[in-house]
Amino acid sequence: MPGSTFGRILTITTFGESHGPGIGVVMDGVPPGLALGAQDIQRELDRRRPGQSAITTPRSEKDRVEILSGVFDGLTTGTSIALLIRNEDKRSSDYDNLKDLYRPGHADWTYSAKFGVRDWRGSGRASGRETAARVAAGAVAKKFLSARGVTLLGYSREIAGVRAVRVVPEEIERNAARCPDPEAAPRMIEQIEKAKAEKDSVGGIVEVVADGCPPGLGDPVFDKLEALLGHAILSVGAVRGVEVGAGFEAVRMRGSVYNDEPYMDGDRIRTRTNHAGGIAGGISNGMQIVVRAAMRPPASISKPQKTLDTSGKPVTVEIAGRHDPCIVPRAVPVIEAMTALVLADCLLIQEAYRGSR
Amino acid sequence: MPGSTFGRILTITTFGESHGPGIGVVMDGVPPGLALGAQDIQRELDRRRPGQSAITTPRSEKDRVEILSGVFDGLTTGTSIALLIRNEDKRSSDYDNLKDLYRPGHADWTYSAKFGVRDWRGSGRASGRETAARVAAGAVAKKFLSARGVTLLGYSREIAGVRAVRVVPEEIERNAARCPDPEAAPRMIEQIEKAKAEKDSVGGIVEVVADGCPPGLGDPVFDKLEALLGHAILSVGAVRGVEVGAGFEAVRMRGSVYNDEPYMDGDRIRTRTNHAGGIAGGISNGMQIVVRAAMRPPASISKPQKTLDTSGKPVTVEIAGRHDPCIVPRAVPVIEAMTALVLADCLLIQEAYRGSR
Amino acid sequence: MPGSTFGRILTITTFGESHGPGIGVVMDGVPPGLALGAQDIQRELDRRRPGQSAITTPRSEKDRVEILSGVFDGLTTGTSIALLIRNEDKRSSDYDNLKDLYRPGHADWTYSAKFGVRDWRGSGRASGRETAARVAAGAVAKKFLSARGVTLLGYSREIAGVRAVRVVPEEIERNAARCPDPEAAPRMIEQIEKAKAEKDSVGGIVEVVADGCPPGLGDPVFDKLEALLGHAILSVGAVRGVEVGAGFEAVRMRGSVYNDEPYMDGDRIRTRTNHAGGIAGGISNGMQIVVRAAMRPPASISKPQKTLDTSGKPVTVEIAGRHDPCIVPRAVPVIEAMTALVLADCLLIQEAYRGSR
Amino acid sequence: MPGSTFGRILTITTFGESHGPGIGVVMDGVPPGLALGAQDIQRELDRRRPGQSAITTPRSEKDRVEILSGVFDGLTTGTSIALLIRNEDKRSSDYDNLKDLYRPGHADWTYSAKFGVRDWRGSGRASGRETAARVAAGAVAKKFLSARGVTLLGYSREIAGVRAVRVVPEEIERNAARCPDPEAAPRMIEQIEKAKAEKDSVGGIVEVVADGCPPGLGDPVFDKLEALLGHAILSVGAVRGVEVGAGFEAVRMRGSVYNDEPYMDGDRIRTRTNHAGGIAGGISNGMQIVVRAAMRPPASISKPQKTLDTSGKPVTVEIAGRHDPCIVPRAVPVIEAMTALVLADCLLIQEAYRGSR
Repeated sequence: MPGSTFGRILTITTFGESHGPGIGVVMDGVPPGLALGAQDIQRELDRRRPGQSAITTPRSEKDRVEILSGVFDGLTTGTSIALLIRNEDKRSSDYDNLKDLYRPGHADWTYSAKFGVRDWRGSGRASGRETAARVAAGAVAKKFLSARGVTLLGYSREIAGVRAVRVVPEEIERNAARCPDPEAAPRMIEQIEKAKAEKDSVGGIVEVVADGCPPGLGDPVFDKLEALLGHAILSVGAVRGVEVGAGFEAVRMRGSVYNDEPYMDGDRIRTRTNHAGGIAGGISNGMQIVVRAAMRPPASISKPQKTLDTSGKPVTVEIAGRHDPCIVPRAVPVIEAMTALVLADCLLIQEAYRGSR
Repeated sequence: MPGSTFGRILTITTFGESHGPGIGVVMDGVPPGLALGAQDIQRELDRRRPGQSAITTPRSEKDRVEILSGVFDGLTTGTSIALLIRNEDKRSSDYDNLKDLYRPGHADWTYSAKFGVRDWRGSGRASGRETAARVAAGAVAKKFLSARGVTLLGYSREIAGVRAVRVVPEEIERNAARCPDPEAAPRMIEQIEKAKAEKDSVGGIVEVVADGCPPGLGDPVFDKLEALLGHAILSVGAVRGVEVGAGFEAVRMRGSVYNDEPYMDGDRIRTRTNHAGGIAGGISNGMQIVVRAAMRPPASISKPQKTLDTSGKPVTVEIAGRHDPCIVPRAVPVIEAMTALVLADCLLIQEAYRGSR
Repeated sequence: MPGSTFGRILTITTFGESHGPGIGVVMDGVPPGLALGAQDIQRELDRRRPGQSAITTPRSEKDRVEILSGVFDGLTTGTSIALLIRNEDKRSSDYDNLKDLYRPGHADWTYSAKFGVRDWRGSGRASGRETAARVAAGAVAKKFLSARGVTLLGYSREIAGVRAVRVVPEEIERNAARCPDPEAAPRMIEQIEKAKAEKDSVGGIVEVVADGCPPGLGDPVFDKLEALLGHAILSVGAVRGVEVGAGFEAVRMRGSVYNDEPYMDGDRIRTRTNHAGGIAGGISNGMQIVVRAAMRPPASISKPQKTLDTSGKPVTVEIAGRHDPCIVPRAVPVIEAMTALVLADCLLIQEAYRGSR
Repeated sequence: MPGSTFGRILTITTFGESHGPGIGVVMDGVPPGLALGAQDIQRELDRRRPGQSAITTPRSEKDRVEILSGVFDGLTTGTSIALLIRNEDKRSSDYDNLKDLYRPGHADWTYSAKFGVRDWRGSGRASGRETAARVAAGAVAKKFLSARGVTLLGYSREIAGVRAVRVVPEEIERNAARCPDPEAAPRMIEQIEKAKAEKDSVGGIVEVVADGCPPGLGDPVFDKLEALLGHAILSVGAVRGVEVGAGFEAVRMRGSVYNDEPYMDGDRIRTRTNHAGGIAGGISNGMQIVVRAAMRPPASISKPQKTLDTSGKPVTVEIAGRHDPCIVPRAVPVIEAMTALVLADCLLIQEAYRGSR
């Protein structure tokens, strides 16, 4: 089945299963002449990798990336860039007792129904591990955006009901929750630890803000910027909702409140509020682009759950394995990566038409 | 710029501006042999068309559809289907005083920034009028789905803070708010009328439920069913957020609560709850598919608003024209249409691989 | 089934059957700000339209184009451009006696096999009439290219074994054969008339030359310029082969002869010969781009032919109707159009990456 | 730049340079449940690999393939299949003296013009070595087709003016020229050796025949089967022309001769001749599909040639390195692979619509 390619002229095509030889991505459409080294990608992978803190899964993957193509003498060549990450700490045996049942909240049953065959080792292709490939590609997109003055900031806006009220950028990478609010951070971590102790899991909200985007990104009708972002972000495993700007809160606003008032800031048009989240009519307006992803609690919990085995018989399962009690902190670089990929693609498309005027 | 095509093997390509000769759509990939007449499409267009009730814009468009191709002797031929709707009640002069300014909350400034030129008559291509083409195509998708046992139900889940608590299907088309709850309906309408009287506008939430979907729809990684739905629905003008199943509420659930418990219902696997909204691992699981769109209040209000003219000078604008104080009721068939198009596309892709096993 | 869309960021989506209400095209990705009027398109349609000379079909279609969208105040807006051509001189009754048989050399049987249903009136979607939509879109692409200094010249290089030896550009539109060689032209016409008198048909070769293309058009691996041209041109009904530069003659050349020797012409790199047809490694090199299409003789002939009816019974058929004894002269603008569409698409892609350096 | 992805629902995305770490491909859309092992792919790679005979380049690459994903317990899982081939015998130093000049007939100058940067080691991405990835993917496509009763046969129809008159299938892999005619084979080899001795190179024609294709493959208008084949095959480095069935010979035929006469063969419709090459109206008709690729002589020859260095100064070059005097025999599996990929993609698309009837 299709589904492993995303993008319009900057595309990524990913591959790999949780417990196969490795995972990776082929990126096509990266402009030539961009300085790129493995360390640019490694930095982002390290933010996503398992085992990075006490509140993430102890699966120990170094996630070392190898650049297989598309870079020569430290510069991108304009041809397809392949990135490979070998799987190292595979304990497929952890899954031996799971292969004959459908874990609740997982893709086990739907993959079986769809494909007839299923790689049961750690969810196979449906594993969150596939997002490492996204993060690797996102690192390249970020590098390109950064050279164009576009920077991204991602963080946990909410975890287990605890909300970050302030955004202190330098705080984010200082705490295991990737919370931008120094007061909220310990409370988030506490909630995650509590859930873990109770063999349960919790959800939250990732927020990504993009600064420096020129007006004009996104295309009319079906390729509105929020539509592309929605596609990109809702394709990340645990995401159940996406919103831009005021998002679901806009639902209860009056038009006179929601409409952002434009004014001149020097020779630039800005708006006094940013309910639009930097996107009007599907096209960036030069303000901050703000997007949020609602992430459900991870499906794998060690609490006993009722489910079915593959023959349809009721069984109770306690999922041992090595799992994250909350995926939000590790999802931050993933949502950033997807945002970066969409923005870079839109920037290139916009360039095509700007150049032609 | 691209952006007017959506879909993978069932595609739609739309065209048309609010005040140009007409709008329309070319659908490609509709299976041959499907009974289809103009009346099938007209029925859906009538649900979206302006002037259908006291709480919608009085612009009088009959939205008569003409089938230009792809149907012969009452059956689809398998070749591209073109549908044309002429614009009739164009009062471009309404916009004469607006052409030199940027209306707040509209795409005026972003379209100018992106394209250099702008069709200022009624928002041109950025007008909500383009959704008529989506509804026309969606009618065809619904016809196909219906022949396969898949039916869709859409309604206003919330308007101006008033929430529908019950869903009584036959109630929906009986009230101007398309509210499924007979108690909430008059209160929704009251809120819309109040906003209108106060020269303002209100937002709300459209919910669409799909029944009868087989397991297996959606594809791994980037073409997860919720990602395709997110793309489709966030591309509709006023939508600021999309969620499936428990959506943003999942954020505060524990895994032990969120995970839907599977059980056997005869020879079918079902789940006791449906927090997943019918989608697990990006693939339909045979339960109801549930999707919601957050719609902001319409940007056009007649209350005075501060803005800029195209030279950057501050001005105050009162948007007269003919506008909807709330777009939610008319958006119901649009969100249904986008859902139908995604499901039909996924069903065809799934067929390709089922057939090949 | 899919198949009605072509292009990467400049796309065309066509619709329409030979004897339906009309045919047309939606073009997406045309840059904004391009001066465009119906007359720009009409001029090209007139070169393709039936009944233009004594050696073409007498079907009388004025092929008047209507611009339905994407143009405002005489300029393209950057949004999708829809073009509609109504069918006028439909004599579907001509086909009454053909609907129950499979005409030799036609798509009657394959369309039946593929679709189950078939629009038997004048080949339906498989009719050469669909190329009017291509020519209309090609006219827009040509306008864009022309503004960028790229011009196209198409002509009949060979008809019924008569070859044009010289290319005198101004001669081409002066004779009904669109032959660039004043000596060969009357002999080509004579051969066409002879075939017509003998109730038969003849084939030939269309050649298109593009001048002024910058180096850099086309993309590595699968989107080499010749591959895109091949796709575009082999999709035209009667084309059975495509070649670029020396083409099939290159097969018998030695490398030392085939390799074009580069030299400096002022500050430009040129080559002394152009066996490559302006494309090296899949990418334009700044020399003339030369492409040729091999066109088979039209399938519709009035000579008696043995065939099968739809029940499988052998029958003899004489196809009366109104047909072209040779399609080559009318195919010239079609092959030009497809070439123009590919070049314009490549130019925009190239712009995206040039702008990003 | 884009260009590294091909296909509609069965897609391949390739990567890799001649002298980088390796080359490979990600295939998406392969049906689940297909038995697949490395040996299935290796067999085809061995037919393409360098150093297989006295008349090919002595570069010694074992071209060992590693399956990185998409296969579990010997069966395809329906998810993306990644295949990696490491480069082993890289002698980049061979190219040290070439990095500052533009080799005649190569992509050196066009890649420089397009990308600004260039991987000069053995043509980088423009190297024929990228076709190993195509062959690997083609092996999977062949496996799928074979399970559906479709088989492919490829061979050298012509080399250096020597034409194979007969096609004896079992002869093909017996001689280094992959010539199906035992009389022509030694003469082809002799011509290749002669060219090699004279430090020159020769071209030829690859023909591929597909047996067992059901009617219905290919889609209307732009995705006609011959158009997809043309795109696929013209994207192979040295191909300068493509034709199907009678191809360029159809140009001199009369319609009464070209039209294939249908007859009933039991309950199957067949045609007495096959000038159409198994494709009518862009759709397979159940007869043999016949396609031919015109291959120019390789650009790398050791004969002295005049060219330019990268500063524009005239120089003379003798290309030492390790090169093929004729690429036709090694191109046979490449053209087969591209044909297989197109047919498999069309078969899946057809399945989608057959299933939906």
